[in-house]
Amino acid sequence: MPTDLTVTAVRLTPVLVADPPLLNTQGVHQPYTPRLIVEVETAGGARGVGETYGDTKYLELARPLAELLVGRQVTDVNALFALADEVAVDSSRVSGQVDVGGLRGSQTADKLRLSVLSGLEVACLDALGKALGLPVHALLGGKVRDAVEYSAYLFYKWAGHPEGVACEKDDWGAALDPAGVVEQARAFTERYGFTSFKLKGGVFPPDEEIAAVRALAAAFPGRPLRLDPNGAWSVETSLRVAEELGDVLEYLEDPALGTPAMAEVAARTGVPLATNMCVTTFAEIPEAFAKGAVQVVLSDHHYWGGLRNTRHLAAVCRTFGVGVSMHSNTHLGISLAAMTHVAATVPNLHHACDSHYPWQSEDVLTERVAFDGGRVTVSDAPGLGVELDRDRLEFLHRRWLDDDGALRDRDDAAAMRVADPAWVTPSVPRW
Amino acid sequence: MPTDLTVTAVRLTPVLVADPPLLNTQGVHQPYTPRLIVEVETAGGARGVGETYGDTKYLELARPLAELLVGRQVTDVNALFALADEVAVDSSRVSGQVDVGGLRGSQTADKLRLSVLSGLEVACLDALGKALGLPVHALLGGKVRDAVEYSAYLFYKWAGHPEGVACEKDDWGAALDPAGVVEQARAFTERYGFTSFKLKGGVFPPDEEIAAVRALAAAFPGRPLRLDPNGAWSVETSLRVAEELGDVLEYLEDPALGTPAMAEVAARTGVPLATNMCVTTFAEIPEAFAKGAVQVVLSDHHYWGGLRNTRHLAAVCRTFGVGVSMHSNTHLGISLAAMTHVAATVPNLHHACDSHYPWQSEDVLTERVAFDGGRVTVSDAPGLGVELDRDRLEFLHRRWLDDDGALRDRDDAAAMRVADPAWVTPSVPRW
Repeated sequence: MPTDLTVTAVRLTPVLVADPPLLNTQGVHQPYTPRLIVEVETAGGARGVGETYGDTKYLELARPLAELLVGRQVTDVNALFALADEVAVDSSRVSGQVDVGGLRGSQTADKLRLSVLSGLEVACLDALGKALGLPVHALLGGKVRDAVEYSAYLFYKWAGHPEGVACEKDDWGAALDPAGVVEQARAFTERYGFTSFKLKGGVFPPDEEIAAVRALAAAFPGRPLRLDPNGAWSVETSLRVAEELGDVLEYLEDPALGTPAMAEVAARTGVPLATNMCVTTFAEIPEAFAKGAVQVVLSDHHYWGGLRNTRHLAAVCRTFGVGVSMHSNTHLGISLAAMTHVAATVPNLHHACDSHYPWQSEDVLTERVAFDGGRVTVSDAPGLGVELDRDRLEFLHRRWLDDDGALRDRDDAAAMRVADPAWVTPSVPRW
Repeated sequence: MPTDLTVTAVRLTPVLVADPPLLNTQGVHQPYTPRLIVEVETAGGARGVGETYGDTKYLELARPLAELLVGRQVTDVNALFALADEVAVDSSRVSGQVDVGGLRGSQTADKLRLSVLSGLEVACLDALGKALGLPVHALLGGKVRDAVEYSAYLFYKWAGHPEGVACEKDDWGAALDPAGVVEQARAFTERYGFTSFKLKGGVFPPDEEIAAVRALAAAFPGRPLRLDPNGAWSVETSLRVAEELGDVLEYLEDPALGTPAMAEVAARTGVPLATNMCVTTFAEIPEAFAKGAVQVVLSDHHYWGGLRNTRHLAAVCRTFGVGVSMHSNTHLGISLAAMTHVAATVPNLHHACDSHYPWQSEDVLTERVAFDGGRVTVSDAPGLGVELDRDRLEFLHRRWLDDDGALRDRDDAAAMRVADPAWVTPSVPRW
């Protein structure tokens, strides 16, 4: 007889994790970023972990969605999606527009639900794998590669958070010009072996960022390079950057905001466009694909509703000849492990995935997920192949409890105003 | 420690199964139809069964593809697809055109490989489920419904195969006019409880088939009705039938042949069009969807490469607002069980599936899959929930061995020529 796979408990633990002062077009990362850790436990004693966004609007949904899972089998996730549709979402939480952070695409009730469900799904897959002695990739039909390639995710950054702000120190130093970006890239290659590079742009006027990419191309000749201004540019600016960097770019990510603008850019350049902003839901695909607005969809398994849905997305992209890779926002090792498992099963993954993980000095695992030669080895251990460190989880949760609410909702513009009280979220296009 | 899931053996058993004299636009079903039964065995002693098309061109590929599976884990199917691409397909087997039977869409090397792989994938899922104590639907994320609805698959038919032809007798009688079709439909409802009806058309001039559908509508008011002439009609004929039957049809299936003709029909009628001929591969989807040629894709999990790929297809359809249901060709209970498991996991399945199974008096199972109220209950037993009857398998395999080759490749036109030596495959459009 198989072990009893009925979910008996779901534990939800919001945490605040240290984040360096990384710059983007909206502002700067807060010193601590919220994440939600999900644990499921089965009647047979299997435990699984998942992770997702931890802002208040996700937490509000996590409790009712977790309650839907209790009493179900960990194998029984498909039916959860329809049940989740019944759970009300506070309309003030979803504008239908690009979110306040500007970095997660449009905000809809459906996407909020899917983001929370992804944490539950991953925890169920982890628990199922542990109960059966199978790695998560095997539950998805098996890996097609033994390691998943990641790119170095470079950021303009300050040496430290503004004075007087409680924070963890980082040893990456500042990167505010081409030389600083190249130095950061060298550190990434030395520590992790990455062989492709993505620069988060939209921070400085385009000519400065062009110079930074040119400096990367000179320092790492022939290596795939990407630039991502999070939609900060006009169509004309996007085209100018594409023209100037076309010979060294693997792709441009979200140069302009929204499908119509992206389509206009795509129609007038040979540089492929990637997106994590104009296609972040299945509903956005038909228009974007029909218009040829994107050549690579960067999946974030949280937005898309988990690992099986990410495989569906990859199949949709494969069908339409659109590339696929993976997006990342600030995340911990659980999500990196989940990304790695699903990425290992996707045949048409032809670009290194993004991951913020090297920037996260803190984690909730007993052992950090390791990059070797820029790759993460696909674990064949049961489940995700990671183990929760309860003391670390408790420590990071305590930080969340102790916060007065200021950091529980990530707001990069608010973080920027600590340094620059006059800062307002730039209107788009910024350049 | 988990059981050893390594595939130690794959057994391939071609069989010939009795088929009544069902008519279609190409001719008539042979008295016996080839199918291939696949068995996999693991080192841990789990056994799984699969089923697929059994014509020679499939058998030729089955051996080399089965050899790729030996030594792999039954969980490890994704990687098999790329390996299969390396296996050569005899180019004389694939015209790129619609196949000789005319009923399985375009024939490509890729589709032949996928059809064979589907039998291996299903056998692996069955073995995995049996090893783990989990039903196949649970391996696919879990059922979203407890029973899957099927439609009555009505055929024009003779009372028996031509005199002198070795065959099994059936007790369905002839159906060659509206009254005969209604009588057949009544028998189907009485025996199986079906509440929707599909008539295989393209056999008689359209006015006769219109009359048959009208007779069904009168006999079963309000019930969903479908007509499928397998692409036998011109665009104008298709439009005339749509006009005359628009008030009673759930959809028209493949009225005209090929995406351009289907698109023209779709543009000029409000009757939804379903297909199992112009969209039978992922490669055919972009053009067909862009042109609005089809409103419902009828998946055949054999063509599409198995149950996980069928779920991907359903996700593609969901993304583009195209309906999905399931196609059937002559098949046994293993494939009906497989269809039922995957159909149970697809949220956007809004039409009753097709199945020839009621026409198959013979099977290789110890217990037939049962229809109750037109539905098949989704099994929660380990694997597919069916058991192979080795004596029956051996009996039907013996029939295949004893055949001189005449029936090993299904050819409905050749079967028709036994009754009508002057019969030639009708050119399309026939009307």
